[in-house]
Amino acid sequence: MNLPLKYNADGLIPAIVQDADSGRVLMMAWMNETSLRSTLEKGLMHYWSRSRQKYWLKGETSGHTQRVIRFHVDCDADTLLFEVEQTGGACHTGHQSCFFQEVDRDGKLLEISETPVFNAGETYASKN
Amino acid sequence: MNLPLKYNADGLIPAIVQDADSGRVLMMAWMNETSLRSTLEKGLMHYWSRSRQKYWLKGETSGHTQRVIRFHVDCDADTLLFEVEQTGGACHTGHQSCFFQEVDRDGKLLEISETPVFNAGETYASKN
Repeated sequence: MNLPLKYNADGLIPAIVQDADSGRVLMMAWMNETSLRSTLEKGLMHYWSRSRQKYWLKGETSGHTQRVIRFHVDCDADTLLFEVEQTGGACHTGHQSCFFQEVDRDGKLLEISETPVFNAGETYASKN
Repeated sequence: MNLPLKYNADGLIPAIVQDADSGRVLMMAWMNETSLRSTLEKGLMHYWSRSRQKYWLKGETSGHTQRVIRFHVDCDADTLLFEVEQTGGACHTGHQSCFFQEVDRDGKLLEISETPVFNAGETYASKN
């Protein structure tokens, strides 16, 4: 891989993930060089979890994998964009997208009208 | 503004910007609390430039402003998503989106087929 990417001081780069069909932005997470290499080799999104300090194959626990359809890098080479085919939902809350909360102009959260696409309690509890 | 956002150690939070009509992801930049407040008050995207260490009204030089249509916060409250109406193009290269470069599975940049939507040389040179 010869991409001249700019990783931050922790060796990480942000990856924006978008549904390839609908265009909906699903989540943003961080990658290091190894998780990017795994993502490209296997065609499935892999991240670096800053809170758990470990590699993370998205869907490893939930089954909700993200298959890579297209991969873009930005003009500064410091942000990645992946278009994916999402199985189930991207969010650990059960929602399709992590951005299910809308905010108004006064900075107040609007009432959440969208229903989850899977039962997060069942999905994660049974696997721990 | 009562949003309990999680800013990083530098007091910044990433903002993903998406075209409200087409769904295309245009760019990602960083905000601090003041630039977020300006964004909401004025309805135009304001950022914090890490390289220049200053506030930045997107379009101040180029005229290519971004009008806020919708604003979302993610499940962890550490990433923002704005749907905007983009005047001209978002990228300083003249492209509509900063993610105009596609990468293949081997990590090689594909040939750029997309043409810029404005002349970056003229747009920025005349204003400096």
